[in-house]
Amino acid sequence: MRKILILCGLFIGLQAFAQIERVEPPNWWTGFEQDSLQLMIYGRNIGTAEVSSNYQGIQVLGTEKADSPNYIFVNLVITEAAKPGNMKLNFKFEDGSSEVIDYELKEREQAAEDFVGFDNTDAIYLITPDRFANGDYSNDVDEILNEKTIDLEDDYARHGGDIRGIIDHLDYIDDMGFTAIWSSPLLINDMKSGSYHGYAMTDFYKVDPRFGTLEEYKELAQKADERGIKLIMDMVANHTGVEHWWMDDLPFNDWINYQEKFENDEELIYSNHRRTANQDLYASEADKKVMSNGWFVETMPDLNQKNPYLAKYIIQNNIWWVETLKLGGIRQDTYPYPDMDFMSEWAGAIMKEYPNFNIVGEEWSNNPLLIRYWQDGIENGYDSNLKSTMDFAMQSNIVKGLNEESGWDTGLQRLYDGLANDFAYASPENIMIFPDNHDMSRIYTQLNEDLENTKMALSYILSLPRIAQIYYGTEILMNDTAKPGDHGLIRTDFPGGWKDSDRNAFTGEGLSQEEKEMQKFLKTVLNYRKSSKAIQEGNLVHFTPQNKIYLLSRTSGGETIVLILNKNEESVDLDLSRFAELELEGMQFQNLMTNEKMTWDKSLELPSRGVYFFTTKMNNSN
Amino acid sequence: MRKILILCGLFIGLQAFAQIERVEPPNWWTGFEQDSLQLMIYGRNIGTAEVSSNYQGIQVLGTEKADSPNYIFVNLVITEAAKPGNMKLNFKFEDGSSEVIDYELKEREQAAEDFVGFDNTDAIYLITPDRFANGDYSNDVDEILNEKTIDLEDDYARHGGDIRGIIDHLDYIDDMGFTAIWSSPLLINDMKSGSYHGYAMTDFYKVDPRFGTLEEYKELAQKADERGIKLIMDMVANHTGVEHWWMDDLPFNDWINYQEKFENDEELIYSNHRRTANQDLYASEADKKVMSNGWFVETMPDLNQKNPYLAKYIIQNNIWWVETLKLGGIRQDTYPYPDMDFMSEWAGAIMKEYPNFNIVGEEWSNNPLLIRYWQDGIENGYDSNLKSTMDFAMQSNIVKGLNEESGWDTGLQRLYDGLANDFAYASPENIMIFPDNHDMSRIYTQLNEDLENTKMALSYILSLPRIAQIYYGTEILMNDTAKPGDHGLIRTDFPGGWKDSDRNAFTGEGLSQEEKEMQKFLKTVLNYRKSSKAIQEGNLVHFTPQNKIYLLSRTSGGETIVLILNKNEESVDLDLSRFAELELEGMQFQNLMTNEKMTWDKSLELPSRGVYFFTTKMNNSN
Repeated sequence: MRKILILCGLFIGLQAFAQIERVEPPNWWTGFEQDSLQLMIYGRNIGTAEVSSNYQGIQVLGTEKADSPNYIFVNLVITEAAKPGNMKLNFKFEDGSSEVIDYELKEREQAAEDFVGFDNTDAIYLITPDRFANGDYSNDVDEILNEKTIDLEDDYARHGGDIRGIIDHLDYIDDMGFTAIWSSPLLINDMKSGSYHGYAMTDFYKVDPRFGTLEEYKELAQKADERGIKLIMDMVANHTGVEHWWMDDLPFNDWINYQEKFENDEELIYSNHRRTANQDLYASEADKKVMSNGWFVETMPDLNQKNPYLAKYIIQNNIWWVETLKLGGIRQDTYPYPDMDFMSEWAGAIMKEYPNFNIVGEEWSNNPLLIRYWQDGIENGYDSNLKSTMDFAMQSNIVKGLNEESGWDTGLQRLYDGLANDFAYASPENIMIFPDNHDMSRIYTQLNEDLENTKMALSYILSLPRIAQIYYGTEILMNDTAKPGDHGLIRTDFPGGWKDSDRNAFTGEGLSQEEKEMQKFLKTVLNYRKSSKAIQEGNLVHFTPQNKIYLLSRTSGGETIVLILNKNEESVDLDLSRFAELELEGMQFQNLMTNEKMTWDKSLELPSRGVYFFTTKMNNSN
Repeated sequence: MRKILILCGLFIGLQAFAQIERVEPPNWWTGFEQDSLQLMIYGRNIGTAEVSSNYQGIQVLGTEKADSPNYIFVNLVITEAAKPGNMKLNFKFEDGSSEVIDYELKEREQAAEDFVGFDNTDAIYLITPDRFANGDYSNDVDEILNEKTIDLEDDYARHGGDIRGIIDHLDYIDDMGFTAIWSSPLLINDMKSGSYHGYAMTDFYKVDPRFGTLEEYKELAQKADERGIKLIMDMVANHTGVEHWWMDDLPFNDWINYQEKFENDEELIYSNHRRTANQDLYASEADKKVMSNGWFVETMPDLNQKNPYLAKYIIQNNIWWVETLKLGGIRQDTYPYPDMDFMSEWAGAIMKEYPNFNIVGEEWSNNPLLIRYWQDGIENGYDSNLKSTMDFAMQSNIVKGLNEESGWDTGLQRLYDGLANDFAYASPENIMIFPDNHDMSRIYTQLNEDLENTKMALSYILSLPRIAQIYYGTEILMNDTAKPGDHGLIRTDFPGGWKDSDRNAFTGEGLSQEEKEMQKFLKTVLNYRKSSKAIQEGNLVHFTPQNKIYLLSRTSGGETIVLILNKNEESVDLDLSRFAELELEGMQFQNLMTNEKMTWDKSLELPSRGVYFFTTKMNNSN
């Protein structure tokens, strides 16, 4: 059954052969830098229509046919003379019939420069919305969708979490000290199974009804904004869900990669995932092609961004969402897989409209050369226009370093060595760091459920010149230890997000002592970080780890923090003379965790393994 | 006993209080780009002398005192009017006495642009001269030196190898296909023990008499040059031997680092070897200082290149050697340890005099960011002037990859991934690659004495866009398996280099079948490489390893090579369709090792694990 999403049109008649079913983007705005707009219009036999408009300030440059007779692309210019309003677009079809649609040109509600993207002052809460909180039980099942059930016992089924659930707990997120939310995709995934994760979109303009409505998404954006929380949208330019509405009638013969294989039911070609082919001077064309054009999985057709209509479609779609939700950033999934030139154009187009915006691309690589390569500001013959990349390298260094014994280049030294690579980056502070995410084992599992090591990882991450991202549930030691790496288990339901929970992480009810301890720990560090100039912009100095102790300090203006990671089980009396250049002697510090005060002197006792987080910014409450 | 090395002076009288003992550099040349020269002159109470010269074209700009009264630095300008000859320098001492010395200004024998440095057309034979061949038994022991014995049974004693030994075997080196020789230092190490390795120099202007004379060093240079073999000199700017003549009477109080500790017999400060401090944005001053200024070992005082007299001394000394020996390159030891600004100035000064020269710096790091950082041509705020760096990263990738099982990012994939990093380098072809060197386990030991893996490593290294370096003895599978990593054992005597050997690698006598096989293998590849445009400048394409098979191809003009590394023990029929873009179908190839010919077709049988090296350049001899 074909679903009609956007019905802007006035149907003049009910012709058998030509009728408009979809107009995308469903509306647009006046006042963009880029004054052109390409509408993709879908309807039976409409490809050869003549299109005109008398709306003031609008020029219809012309139309373009697709390979399918049921698409028409209409090229418009929205001049400065165009005022917001409903413009009429007149279609005259080949069969002599005609149709007029109303197309809304909205007024922009927020100045371009006020779309401020996430940055290193932010700590981002990453949420898998199906698993965070079920705020609306009425939308759990939608009988017209392919996947009709929820099953909380099945980690790969839908669990009912939704946008309302996030809205309901914005206070919790705010109180914890997070300043941004990145939810994995909320757009419709009308897939037959596994639709909960959101990365197989079947309509780029529709919110998944099991997550809520567009209005609720807007409400989330607005209520987050009221709390100073930025909303980051998870975009996917590389692929779509195989149940996407256009898969039955693709506009062009090259709309998706290996389209002929798909249409002829032949064996598909999958990506080799050798992402280095993007940079490699010596990569074969064969490897490059399979890397970029091969499908991610069988259920996710690989989009061909080299098709200029698709390229425009994606860019306009993304701008539509930024503008509609007043977003505070985009996270681009599987960033190195789409066509590189397109990705540059895509990010460039968005950043041109929103100069203070931010976009982070997912390149899952521990190789600093690649983290470096993709970030804007590097002279390498490729202009990514991408402000932010992801620090999988440091994530890996931190986990390995904390898990292993100290050696010449192991243990805490691995953290130090990793951070020493920052010289290679255009702007380390615009790189996103994280203890884990929705695609890898939970940090507590990665660190073998060692509470002190987990605290060390988190406090270290939150003290670096980086954008910080924390996955929901990290604060209460959520883990996948029962089956490490299992995606469904990683994305476990957040306690308290469902009625009748016997445990509630929002209230603390039923949490273990360790879980409560971690929640308090993270809340303390996040809230400190939120207003800490030392962390947000301070000069960083670190000292080569010695005797299993790693000291890092940051200073800005009158504020200094000293973070000590101590891997010694026994009490250590740390000689402070090595750190003399910090000029801390005689200064008053407070231990952020215990509120104990001390004066920086000749030596410092570290009673046990763990984090020692000292600050000169006193907090006299307790 | 103070040894008087250079007696250029005419002693006018035998004053008790002032007499010149050393003048360094011992001579100079007319016609350099840099027209200034600073002589360091040593002698009792000469610091306050007045110095003059009437030599045409020479200006004595003035003199500078040191902290010790026994040094004087004389600043000269050698103008274009100066002709080669013996100039007289007149010294008038404070005690009223005077002295005149003859100082030779030589004519340059070779045009600056003809000092052509090693490059990626070269394969360098690295020799530990004490252990390669004893060509002159008369110089084995020098009774006036500290270490007076040779002992072939002791791996850390001197063994008697010398310059004559290298000269005697130039034909062997040439026949093997090497085009350059890098000998570890041949300058005097008058140390009490362990002097064989050469890195604790005690006079920067004197050849170790146990290695031979300056005349023999010149003879080596010339005879190598006659065979088209470049001579690379191993320089050490970071440290000296504690027995250096100046250690009893250092010119300045800051001639060496931690000089006061040395002079007061206090506990020394050793380098922390945290070389990343050079680049690290966050490195503490404490770590940086200890890294660069700390001593390498107790017997090697760390030179303070921030002292401008020492800086000039080193630069002039190195130019003196380049000019005297007509060198084909410099290898700088412990490259990241001296003062960075000095190193830039040093390499810049040499490259200014010899625009086609080459210098390679030893940075022992597996981190491509550092290999990248030091190479000239990168925009990173630091101008190294260093054309060539060392590829410890690829060395490590190759060994790990060949030793381990195939996995997603292990096995041959590790080689592929490592090479894919080349995009980050200013000029990959100017980076030096090697299977091992004098400071690490022999490649045969590193590869667990697996002959096929060793052949794979060597053929791969020799096929890459790199300067290649092979350590003497690799060709006959020399190893340190008995005690892996033991420096003395790594630097074992080359069979045939000593009288009465029952094994002789120069003639093949007494070699095992495997040793002979490797020698033939390496000789074949090296000699092919020598004239192969495909390897020297060819376009490189490689394909992601699949099924334990890694194929790499290089093409230039009409010549194509295909190198296949195959880790399968059983016979494999390799489908060649994946490599279609190379357009090899129907082309005739010859297997470089077996001389068998074949036509590139749909598939290729690989009967067993090992190297398959195919070339379109036919060799009809057998």
